[in-house]
Formats: sequence, structure tokens, C-alpha cells
Amino acid sequence: MAERAFHVGVDIGGTKIAGVACDDRGAILSQVRDRTHSPTRGDLSVPRIADLVRETVASAGLPMDAVRAVGVCAPGPLDVASGTVIRVPVLKWTNVPVRALLESELGVPVVLENDGNAAAYGEFLHGAGKGLRSLAFIGLGTGIGGGLVLDGSLYRGRHDHAGEYGHLCVEKDGRRCACGNTGCLEAYASGTSIAAIAREAFAGTGRYDADALASLDCRAVEVLAKEGDPIALSIWDQVGRKLGLAVSALVQSLDPDLIVIGGGTSRALGLFYDTMVDSAKRQMFAVLANDLRIAAARLGESAGAVVAAFLAAEAHGLWKREDHP
Amino acid sequence: MAERAFHVGVDIGGTKIAGVACDDRGAILSQVRDRTHSPTRGDLSVPRIADLVRETVASAGLPMDAVRAVGVCAPGPLDVASGTVIRVPVLKWTNVPVRALLESELGVPVVLENDGNAAAYGEFLHGAGKGLRSLAFIGLGTGIGGGLVLDGSLYRGRHDHAGEYGHLCVEKDGRRCACGNTGCLEAYASGTSIAAIAREAFAGTGRYDADALASLDCRAVEVLAKEGDPIALSIWDQVGRKLGLAVSALVQSLDPDLIVIGGGTSRALGLFYDTMVDSAKRQMFAVLANDLRIAAARLGESAGAVVAAFLAAEAHGLWKREDHP
Repeated sequence: MAERAFHVGVDIGGTKIAGVACDDRGAILSQVRDRTHSPTRGDLSVPRIADLVRETVASAGLPMDAVRAVGVCAPGPLDVASGTVIRVPVLKWTNVPVRALLESELGVPVVLENDGNAAAYGEFLHGAGKGLRSLAFIGLGTGIGGGLVLDGSLYRGRHDHAGEYGHLCVEKDGRRCACGNTGCLEAYASGTSIAAIAREAFAGTGRYDADALASLDCRAVEVLAKEGDPIALSIWDQVGRKLGLAVSALVQSLDPDLIVIGGGTSRALGLFYDTMVDSAKRQMFAVLANDLRIAAARLGESAGAVVAAFLAAEAHGLWKREDHP
Repeated sequence: MAERAFHVGVDIGGTKIAGVACDDRGAILSQVRDRTHSPTRGDLSVPRIADLVRETVASAGLPMDAVRAVGVCAPGPLDVASGTVIRVPVLKWTNVPVRALLESELGVPVVLENDGNAAAYGEFLHGAGKGLRSLAFIGLGTGIGGGLVLDGSLYRGRHDHAGEYGHLCVEKDGRRCACGNTGCLEAYASGTSIAAIAREAFAGTGRYDADALASLDCRAVEVLAKEGDPIALSIWDQVGRKLGLAVSALVQSLDPDLIVIGGGTSRALGLFYDTMVDSAKRQMFAVLANDLRIAAARLGESAGAVVAAFLAAEAHGLWKREDHP
């Protein structure tokens, strides 16, 4: 029997890191999750990522030397060729050479990919976009990311920056964004911004004391809206309107087969779906509005890590897309 | 000697139609121009397009039966597969089956392509984007069109609508656009809109009588600005700001190698270039702003018709891109 190849994928989110170990047939052997380490110097957390890889491998009952490649997906912008994360405002990372640091920690080839690209590719291969030619993925999480599969291929752009819809301007001179600009989609519709907007909105009501207000998070705003709270509902309404503007820009300029909405915050899709669609259709040609297709992501929370593992395997010739249709 | 193949290309603009006859090596044998016929029923002008093709062929000294294929490019949205123009607000065309009507008039195979796509492909093959992998073309004319070449291929989208940047929203609840929506880029930066905005701005000044005001066109606004007229300058300033927003949306979401600005109105590029770049960079990650590349289109006014001729020849196996690098 030929020696089996294993690969590990890591998904670095704004609040969580996930690791999976996969075999050469795509089966998940183990999964490990942890909170994201976010010190002020990003490179300090690379050893923590290495520890997560080791834990993931150990909990699959494998030795480290059975691992052929490690794929890491992280929020962009990043440089795929050099394996460097250029800037992640929510993590306060700037120019972190993740691939080089992690390869020297682990002694295994590492591939870095934008998390939105990984999710888009995953949804295209096995999720909501299976069988289509083109899709735009919008990932609503702690921040907002995204990715594009166009005419059957992952489209990365010149600086591997394609799909960064979070920083489309949806309100001129609007809210300050973590990126330093104003009016970005992320300043209205990321989990972080939804929580911040809610804290501002409830601060004037006297309903919460300072501690309760400080601990109000995006999940709480979702629960409040589902209970019918009008302030919370109006916040999700704004999320829908701003997302709708971004969707209309994507559809008017790219005309993909499908828009896929994913990420942790998309759990609340029912709270903003109708407003998003209304707002999008208002800025769209009728021929596009009448055939607008928006779907929730189908792959679960581990998808980013699994796709990262496969992108690493693919990059090192250990896996071919056509072998596993 | 083998029989030579000739093809004809037609470029339908908001104000002009152009025809060119090309031989199988790409040489232009004749060119004919005319004003666009714009009756209320668009299909009435297809016989006029057929006449232009016959004139173009005759002035090349060819018989009609030497023509193997005719390519037509028109403003979108249109359906390439069925050869139907779906809607051109500036021409008042809705669902005009250009290919079928023209094939029955001429008895020659016809290919229909979006004019922005044709221009994008032309700039990619032989113009400002030669040697690059990806570009976004913005065509500023009577209306605003565009096209995308991504990773080496013309990207059309599900409804052949990709690249229609003219209807990106650049001002919430802004000026009414010919498409029926409000705040579209085209409502601020097309030749038609620039002239309309100038007429509104000068109406209050008493500088022009009603006739002079009515005949104020985009070209006149360009001349006034070059003479230093502050009202005209502020209009071009607004063109730059609105275009900058569209450029930032394109760069943030697509990250192409190059943005190419073309079309008749781009003659005035010097009047709005700096404002456009400033406005674009203000809504962009630094990594993209520091490497922003915007170029004027290099191909002349005949390019649309020439590329249409070649797309027709390519579709009918008469020409291959790799044979003519």
C-alpha cells in the first residue's frame, strides 16, 4: 500500500482559529478550535498557529512527519506568492510573513490563501454554487471578506485583493472603518460594527448599565431583533440596505450566476434578507433584478480550513480537482 | 491562391455608427461613418445598419458575397447567444433581435457583442493593456459602458452584463438616470449628462439665451473648462469625483492590473484625471492605492468596429487569436 498523504488546513478568523486534518480523499480526521490570539505584534501569534497545527495532527493520531502540506486562510489583503498577510485591521496585523514563519516552525510546506477566496472556492466546488460557472461570495464575520469564482476559476486579482467587498463605499463620508477610510460596508455590516452601532444606539436609552452595554455583541443584537426590539430591528434593516448596495454594485459590474452570503453573521440572514434584496434591486437593470440569485452559504464553519488544506494539497500536486469531482 | 475571407465590423454608438471592412490579416480596407438613426422603434434602424454594411463593403471595392461574417457591437445589456439587444436607454431600444434581423437583411452570419466588451478586448490585445492579464475598461461616451478582461479572457457574466459600470450607484438618491434609477455614474459622467448638468448650471446665469443653452453639448463644456470657466471646471470636477468612486469600487472588488478610460468623452481626461485619482484613492486600501494604474485607451475610434469584425471572424473559425499575436 502506498504511503498516505495528510494535509492540515487552518482558518484564521477575527475571533477564532480552526484547524482540520484531512486525508488524501478529503475525509476530516480531526478538528480543533481556539480563540484568535491578537497581540499587538501579529508575528507573535504564528507560534500559536503552529501549536494549533500540532494539536490538530496529534488529535488525528498522526505523527507530524505524516503531514505533507499546511494550508492557511486568513482575512486579506495578503500576498499569495510570498505567503505574507499584508494587513488585517481586525487582527492589527501588518506585513506578517505567515508562510515563512510557519514553515520554519513546522518544517512543512505552507500555502497562504485569502479566507474569502477559500470560502468562494469551497462553495463553488461543493456548496451553494455547485454546477454554476461564476459566483461572488460575501463573508460576514467579525470583519467582511469575500471571493470570486469567475468562469470556473478562482479570480484573485493583481494583489490577491479581488473580492474585498467589505471596503466598498456604501455611504459617502459615513462611519469610520477599521481600515481608516469612511463609509465602508464593513463599518455597517460586520459583526464588530453591528455591535458598536448597537452600543451607540442603546447608550441613550438607559436600558443597560455600562457593563451590560460593553458586553453587547452581534449575537445579542440578533436575539433582541428576533424578540421584536425596534432598535435592534432597525440596525439589521441598515445592514440589509448597505449590503443591498454592495450586491447591486457586484451584480451591475460582474453579473455572476449567484451571490453567496456566508460567515458567522449570516446566521441572522432572515433579519436582513428582504431589505437587502429590495435595496439591491432598486439599483439594478430589470433584466438582472428579475433573475437575481442570492443564496446562503451551504458549507459549515469548517469549510475555510478544509478548503485551505486542499489548496495546499493542490499547490503541492497531492490533489487534483478533476480527480474528485 | 486560396480565396480570401473578408469580415465587416459595425460599432453602434449613442450618436454615431461606424463600419469597417477587414481582410483576413486584419488590414482595414474601408471605413464608413454615419449618425445613429434613432427612431422610437429600434428595429426600424436595422435596415439602416444593413445599408451601412453594404456601403462599407462597396467602398472597399468588394462584392457582398466576399463577406464571410459581420460583427456588431452595441451598448448593453444584450444577449450574445441570441444576438438580441435588450435595452439601450440612450437609443430607446428594447429587445431588438439585431442578429436575426441583420442576417435576414444581409444573408451573412452576424455576431453581436457589447461595445464595452469589444473595446476592453481590443485594449487587452493591442492597446493600453497589451501584455497584462486583467483590465477593466470604462467607456465614457453618450452613455457609459465598459468591459472586463480577467486572467486573459473576456468575462461577460450570466446575462452578458459584466462591465456595465455606468449604472453603479455613486450618489444615494442622486440624479435621475436614463435607466430609470437614480444616482448612477452615467447620470453624472456620460456626455449626455455632462451637457444636461451644464445647461442646468448655466440656465441661472443669464449668460446664454434659450437657443444657445439648448445647443450646449459636452464638447462645449470641455472647451469652456479649458478656457478656465469656473462652472464648467466644477462640472468636470464632479465627473472626476464620481468616476473615482466607481474606480475605487472596481479596484477594491476586482483588483485588475489596469483601469483603461476610453470613449469620446475621455478626450477631456486631463480635466478630471487628478480629481478621479484622488477620489478613488480615498476609498482604497493603501496597498492598492500605492500601485493604482489608470491609462487612457490607446486604440482609436475605429477600434470597436475592428474588434467586432474580429470577434465575428473568431466565432466563425476564420481567425484565431494565437495566429495573430
